[in-house]
Amino acid sequence: MRTGEQYRKGLAKLKDNVYMNGKLVSRDDPVQEGAVNVMAATFDYALDPEFKGIGTAKSHLTGETVNRFTHIHHSMEDLLNKQKMTRLFSQELGGCVARCMGIDATNALSVVTYEADQKYGTEYNKRFLNWLKRVQKEDVACVCGQTDVKGNRPWRPHQQKDPSLYVRVIEKTKDGIIVEGAKAHNSFSSCVDEDIIIPTRHLTDEDKDWAVAFSVPADAEGMTLINAAFSPPKRKKLQAPYSKMGATHSITVFDKCFVPWERVFMCGEPEFAGKLALLFALFHRHSYTGCKAALSEIMLGATALAADYNGIANAQHVRHKLADMISVVELIYAAGIAAGVNHTVAPSGTYVPDTNYCNVGRMLAGESIYEEYMDLAAIAGGLSATLPPEADFENPKTKDMLNRYIMRNPDVSTEDTHRAFRLFQDIMASHWGGHKLIDALHGGGSPVIEKVGIYRDFNLDHSKNIAKRLAGIKTDANDPKGELNRLTHAFI
Amino acid sequence: MRTGEQYRKGLAKLKDNVYMNGKLVSRDDPVQEGAVNVMAATFDYALDPEFKGIGTAKSHLTGETVNRFTHIHHSMEDLLNKQKMTRLFSQELGGCVARCMGIDATNALSVVTYEADQKYGTEYNKRFLNWLKRVQKEDVACVCGQTDVKGNRPWRPHQQKDPSLYVRVIEKTKDGIIVEGAKAHNSFSSCVDEDIIIPTRHLTDEDKDWAVAFSVPADAEGMTLINAAFSPPKRKKLQAPYSKMGATHSITVFDKCFVPWERVFMCGEPEFAGKLALLFALFHRHSYTGCKAALSEIMLGATALAADYNGIANAQHVRHKLADMISVVELIYAAGIAAGVNHTVAPSGTYVPDTNYCNVGRMLAGESIYEEYMDLAAIAGGLSATLPPEADFENPKTKDMLNRYIMRNPDVSTEDTHRAFRLFQDIMASHWGGHKLIDALHGGGSPVIEKVGIYRDFNLDHSKNIAKRLAGIKTDANDPKGELNRLTHAFI
Amino acid sequence: MRTGEQYRKGLAKLKDNVYMNGKLVSRDDPVQEGAVNVMAATFDYALDPEFKGIGTAKSHLTGETVNRFTHIHHSMEDLLNKQKMTRLFSQELGGCVARCMGIDATNALSVVTYEADQKYGTEYNKRFLNWLKRVQKEDVACVCGQTDVKGNRPWRPHQQKDPSLYVRVIEKTKDGIIVEGAKAHNSFSSCVDEDIIIPTRHLTDEDKDWAVAFSVPADAEGMTLINAAFSPPKRKKLQAPYSKMGATHSITVFDKCFVPWERVFMCGEPEFAGKLALLFALFHRHSYTGCKAALSEIMLGATALAADYNGIANAQHVRHKLADMISVVELIYAAGIAAGVNHTVAPSGTYVPDTNYCNVGRMLAGESIYEEYMDLAAIAGGLSATLPPEADFENPKTKDMLNRYIMRNPDVSTEDTHRAFRLFQDIMASHWGGHKLIDALHGGGSPVIEKVGIYRDFNLDHSKNIAKRLAGIKTDANDPKGELNRLTHAFI
Amino acid sequence: MRTGEQYRKGLAKLKDNVYMNGKLVSRDDPVQEGAVNVMAATFDYALDPEFKGIGTAKSHLTGETVNRFTHIHHSMEDLLNKQKMTRLFSQELGGCVARCMGIDATNALSVVTYEADQKYGTEYNKRFLNWLKRVQKEDVACVCGQTDVKGNRPWRPHQQKDPSLYVRVIEKTKDGIIVEGAKAHNSFSSCVDEDIIIPTRHLTDEDKDWAVAFSVPADAEGMTLINAAFSPPKRKKLQAPYSKMGATHSITVFDKCFVPWERVFMCGEPEFAGKLALLFALFHRHSYTGCKAALSEIMLGATALAADYNGIANAQHVRHKLADMISVVELIYAAGIAAGVNHTVAPSGTYVPDTNYCNVGRMLAGESIYEEYMDLAAIAGGLSATLPPEADFENPKTKDMLNRYIMRNPDVSTEDTHRAFRLFQDIMASHWGGHKLIDALHGGGSPVIEKVGIYRDFNLDHSKNIAKRLAGIKTDANDPKGELNRLTHAFI
Repeated sequence: MRTGEQYRKGLAKLKDNVYMNGKLVSRDDPVQEGAVNVMAATFDYALDPEFKGIGTAKSHLTGETVNRFTHIHHSMEDLLNKQKMTRLFSQELGGCVARCMGIDATNALSVVTYEADQKYGTEYNKRFLNWLKRVQKEDVACVCGQTDVKGNRPWRPHQQKDPSLYVRVIEKTKDGIIVEGAKAHNSFSSCVDEDIIIPTRHLTDEDKDWAVAFSVPADAEGMTLINAAFSPPKRKKLQAPYSKMGATHSITVFDKCFVPWERVFMCGEPEFAGKLALLFALFHRHSYTGCKAALSEIMLGATALAADYNGIANAQHVRHKLADMISVVELIYAAGIAAGVNHTVAPSGTYVPDTNYCNVGRMLAGESIYEEYMDLAAIAGGLSATLPPEADFENPKTKDMLNRYIMRNPDVSTEDTHRAFRLFQDIMASHWGGHKLIDALHGGGSPVIEKVGIYRDFNLDHSKNIAKRLAGIKTDANDPKGELNRLTHAFI
Repeated sequence: MRTGEQYRKGLAKLKDNVYMNGKLVSRDDPVQEGAVNVMAATFDYALDPEFKGIGTAKSHLTGETVNRFTHIHHSMEDLLNKQKMTRLFSQELGGCVARCMGIDATNALSVVTYEADQKYGTEYNKRFLNWLKRVQKEDVACVCGQTDVKGNRPWRPHQQKDPSLYVRVIEKTKDGIIVEGAKAHNSFSSCVDEDIIIPTRHLTDEDKDWAVAFSVPADAEGMTLINAAFSPPKRKKLQAPYSKMGATHSITVFDKCFVPWERVFMCGEPEFAGKLALLFALFHRHSYTGCKAALSEIMLGATALAADYNGIANAQHVRHKLADMISVVELIYAAGIAAGVNHTVAPSGTYVPDTNYCNVGRMLAGESIYEEYMDLAAIAGGLSATLPPEADFENPKTKDMLNRYIMRNPDVSTEDTHRAFRLFQDIMASHWGGHKLIDALHGGGSPVIEKVGIYRDFNLDHSKNIAKRLAGIKTDANDPKGELNRLTHAFI
Repeated sequence: MRTGEQYRKGLAKLKDNVYMNGKLVSRDDPVQEGAVNVMAATFDYALDPEFKGIGTAKSHLTGETVNRFTHIHHSMEDLLNKQKMTRLFSQELGGCVARCMGIDATNALSVVTYEADQKYGTEYNKRFLNWLKRVQKEDVACVCGQTDVKGNRPWRPHQQKDPSLYVRVIEKTKDGIIVEGAKAHNSFSSCVDEDIIIPTRHLTDEDKDWAVAFSVPADAEGMTLINAAFSPPKRKKLQAPYSKMGATHSITVFDKCFVPWERVFMCGEPEFAGKLALLFALFHRHSYTGCKAALSEIMLGATALAADYNGIANAQHVRHKLADMISVVELIYAAGIAAGVNHTVAPSGTYVPDTNYCNVGRMLAGESIYEEYMDLAAIAGGLSATLPPEADFENPKTKDMLNRYIMRNPDVSTEDTHRAFRLFQDIMASHWGGHKLIDALHGGGSPVIEKVGIYRDFNLDHSKNIAKRLAGIKTDANDPKGELNRLTHAFI
Repeated sequence: MRTGEQYRKGLAKLKDNVYMNGKLVSRDDPVQEGAVNVMAATFDYALDPEFKGIGTAKSHLTGETVNRFTHIHHSMEDLLNKQKMTRLFSQELGGCVARCMGIDATNALSVVTYEADQKYGTEYNKRFLNWLKRVQKEDVACVCGQTDVKGNRPWRPHQQKDPSLYVRVIEKTKDGIIVEGAKAHNSFSSCVDEDIIIPTRHLTDEDKDWAVAFSVPADAEGMTLINAAFSPPKRKKLQAPYSKMGATHSITVFDKCFVPWERVFMCGEPEFAGKLALLFALFHRHSYTGCKAALSEIMLGATALAADYNGIANAQHVRHKLADMISVVELIYAAGIAAGVNHTVAPSGTYVPDTNYCNVGRMLAGESIYEEYMDLAAIAGGLSATLPPEADFENPKTKDMLNRYIMRNPDVSTEDTHRAFRLFQDIMASHWGGHKLIDALHGGGSPVIEKVGIYRDFNLDHSKNIAKRLAGIKTDANDPKGELNRLTHAFI
């Protein structure tokens, strides 16, 4: 396992292919320092004694201790611990832990490469496991590029006027494949060693050229990252952990990009494209039952702090509101636990969390986040928006006035009051905070997408049979009464 | 274990102390036939091969197989299986399973009698275990009377003008105690062998006489049940399982009622009264994560059926609505699973589910039920309300007209259409259905009570510390970062 | 103008064509006494000095004072007064005022018959005005049958296997037309002198035979009412105004029913069918901004009373909840005021309220009613469901017990407590109450239908132009900035 | 009336007393250019023929045409036109119109100064009218500083450790008063000629020194504005009207600031302090029924545009969502209309809108805004957050890639797509947008404050009497049945 520092050094060596704000920049450009800090933390936390047993796991390939972000789940405990890790690291960081995309894509590939090989006698799984061994050994940081730019939404890949609006294979050679197209919202792609590319949707036989999955070094020839970097507003004196983090999202463009065969994990099997897309989404939504529980708890903690500092913590409506916020935290996390408990085991041996529990947890998180922002704003009050800039707290002409008039709860120092409201402003009223709010809605799949999955994966006929039987209407004889709706309750 | 038939015969032998609709009636009065059917099912299901392993457990006292409703949880599997049993039986019955009150009160007593004995050298636990042995052996049906009539809500028991507005001990004798007062909403008390009486709230030293718990035969001398019996509207020809069930709720009045010492499980220990009250509520809310998931699934199944029959199952807004309803089912049940997984083990050896997960699951159920009724009404349409009585479907003058004009989806027979809308009407627009809707809100504790519990039991300081740390404000050093908010994650 | 008593006498003379609960019954059958009481009140209130100026208007045809329910709106004050009348009478009655269907259908016909005549040179308007003169003079009670039974929902009238699943003309003669089919949910049809029949939807040229509107005496030859009658549970001693009312809804079957030409107001003009359907719905939704405001205020008053009687009126969460309920009352009513203020004047001279304001008011009412029921249930508590029957309060064996233990707020008598909770039970947990809840959702059009209307009638292009202009995107030059979105702001 | 240009010139002449971002700046500092643009527009719009009759009114003092923002309402039309003006100007500007604070404070003072004089024989009204004549003649731009910094929330002004945590009179002289303290959230104070200062809450006799109202030039001696300036992100090439606006909010500090008597409108009459505070809030909430309707329509238009550009405008869930958003626009505006229609006339002759209708409209706006942001984010998608900076669309290395891959709806140009998503990003994911979201919740009073007002101002006894009467419980004889709940229905 590497340290955060080793990771940073490795990153700095990558070739420059990242454009930000109109310029070609190196990976250690200060503008993405916050995002790099987040990724580095996933290395340091694995080694941190306070997180003992959380950030590491025992490789099923080598038996060695590896960073959990490179691990394939091989037990229910693995699933539960990954959820727990995601929550703990996220609350420590103040938000997104970034590297979950790597573990989630890797786990999905472990299942689908195996099944494709079973059907077609290909050797995707072998290639994948070789690749994985190196990833575990060298503690490689990966993310996943899934969402294509998609052009006109109602059209399938092969129907688009420009066929590269979905990433596709334009040529196969003896040594590998040549790909073209672009992935959108490729989060933290500018902060990793490798970018795992997978399909974004169900494909038909006519979309064969678009059924492609592979991993490339993030500075591969023919790959350009047009990057948007975000971080909380910089502080001058009032340093705080929250201000240290950040995120990047790129439109990652592949222009005749070559990928050698040993890095190709799917190529021309459209019936597995949708499966891979869904499976990554599934693992990723399970991650969200961890990180979004953390995010909701951060919003909860901030709101409770605001109530204390404003001296209104005992108002009944405030306590009720906090109870509602707690409830969201608990239900999101409970959904992830239930998903882990009700896992299935894939033919590859990978443990897979339950679909519906993941979807309902993620959907609740997505649907609640705007209300959580409203709760914090409501209880913190307008000062979250109108707080004068930090510099006015330093200017000798205005400093004393501000310190005098910002005072509220007499048990709280002016500096702590300032710190708290500065945090609230960064969360709610900054470029960073606004982008995070949208991210919390859409990242890992929007609520409307989860609705589709929930409707699809639930055995609605079973529910209808319950109603029919109670009504005295003939039911399906194959639907026994001693069963729950869901068929995957492996554990109980 | 007894059969339902044996239970019915036993019940019929009880002395008459039940008043219904102005008259003294026997237990086999047809007006409460539906409620008795429900209780009888808890016996038959335990013996039903289709529910094998669900309705029975191995007694920790005797090692014998007993009805699970008389069992004390001694493993995580016990907790998960009890939740599962509650859901399966409830969806089979069409609603409330009734006997959960017995198992929940019994489990709570197993913990609190032990702890009281540890502190005071009393022998409540010994008495309780003796009593329990008989209950398990004879497969006794019990419910629990908890809610006092409470008089003026802001006043404590000892402050009431009439001290018997909370059940209290008015005399102690060599042989036992004499009690007076009344319990409200004593559900199914007219359908059981024994009624377990426990306190309803936290008590102070001044409320010593009200700190009392015991079990009495349901026809004990000095005990009167003023009973309200409910059941779906009677059918003439269109028989259906839904119509077979029912419920009763009594105001149970104790007028100088004698209870022998061997049935007294608390008497004068106010500091354990609140604990017992909360613990019963906790076990009971865990039950609700099973039965309310079933109830929500029944509403879901009925709504999906209505969509099919109305020919609108493919409308996007219908599918989205069904997905939302599924989400409620899954989140309620997930909360119960998480509560079972994150159990604690009491000194008595009893397994206790996690408080907050139970509360958030129950609260979600309570807060969702009105919307579920609205969803069914919205998708089924007005015919659920205006459907002419069954007799008009039999009258030769109107029968053919109704059969002609009630036709909608051509793939569904007139009779099935009639059956479905009759079910919807029974659920939504009957004396029974209206009372069940209120029951679903309040039974086991209203959402506002759960909010109090959720706020109380969550470690909000931990959440505030997360926010403080991110803001750069000094935090409590004893709050380590490698911990989740909740302290009870025994399993992971 | 007639008195309620005169109306009752007239009603009793109608020929028997009403089937209820399997039997042919006369109009004065006790089972529909409550519904008849409601209709009778619309006569008595018009003469009641306490409602002076509310229930009457000056006929634009004769200049004479008529019952407002027979009046055609000819000023903004008429629109505002009709809304006010509807609210005041509804809160006096405890709910639906029933006769609004007559005034709303009449006003819609006044517009559409005029426009059809303009286009086709027909004489529908002349016939209609002749008919109206008599209605005003004789103070005729009318309702409107609009909703066809509709068979398979996705099919148009002419596509149904049975063409009579929508009411249609099967023959035209020299003297009139012969119609066949059935109307569902024909509310209060068994309590009126005449039933106005109009189309339920937009029709195409292929649906010509279904484009028919007329008024028939409620006991016309060939007309059968299969009736469902509802009323609050009967009281024995505890009489209360709430218990006096009721409602009926029939499936009204036309079997070769003859209608003379002077009663035919549309016959074969499909392009006016949809217009008539929408216009009736519009006037009717304007009515709902009155009656649903009343209904919401009744729920509010009941909830506030429950809070008082339970001694929790000062709890902050109760006050906040009541404020939310007030807000619904006010917004519904405000929408109706805005609709009246922003009226248009039809070529016939009829004043027409604004569509969108009516729709948003009605939609809010429909979407709020389940929450209002939940609020009352939450604050009243479980006794609303489990209250023993009235007879137990009379039985000397149980009476004193109940009177002792039902006591709560010491300032409120046992009888008043009993009365209040009996009302809550009747509202929420009775056959009547359940049917009213569905009625409140669907009556006058369900929220989902209002969504369709709101989306259709709003000038969304104007809103998009606002956004485009702010974005610097070229906008439609014909959309001036000095205009509000809505084009109908006649008043301001 | 002045032009915007004349206003700008006047502003530039004010003495420097504004601190921003650590520096003393002049009023024409570019950082507040956006805010000044907004204020300037209120002058130009009044002269704009496209807004003819909207932005001007006839002075009741001089009979001359004045800018409506300086006018005292003297008819129902004035109230309705002010609401309409506020909506039209706000949708033209893209948000807050700023100068409403001036008109609202002025109208409130017109009422309260008159009433104080009636009671005490003071001459506040005379002074006020003199001041107003000049304001109208010179077309003075005013805002209002109301919210004190308030220190420890549960303490009254006189209980605070530092008595200046509420603005107070520290000395009275022959020529005037000397004041000390600070106002928070003093919006646009750095962009106006005068700042009207009024109390923020109900005061008791012990708070006499805090009962003070006056108007000062914005650069008065002893007055310091610590200012936070906001504006949408600056564009380089992609100029758009949305980017031109801005806002400022200051903590306005009074340090021994002298105010001559002719500018003092209250001084030592605590019983009028609460009245003035409430009345300003009332007029201001009426303004919000205009500007928030505009804001909601901007969100609606943006969301509809996003649906078009993403090619999903026909999806049923999108149309339903847009209908819900329309409904909010319409209900907010309807509440304002109803408030204008149901006005009262104060003894001073000022027309005052209805309290409750204003409160429910403002509350709905505040409670809906987060959901509106969620709707736009949901339908626009993640690109709103991750859109690369404008510079990348100019860089020749990345420009073509972006133009190729940003393409979606083939009927929409790349530039328009870029413009639309840039707007969405500015609205949702910028410092500006985040601060506006909080502003939309709190500005003019938060929903929780409106709840207090709604509960207080509604005649809940009337509602309880309705319920009591229906239950057969004795009611208050003075509550006639022919009345609506609200007493202020002046118009109908």
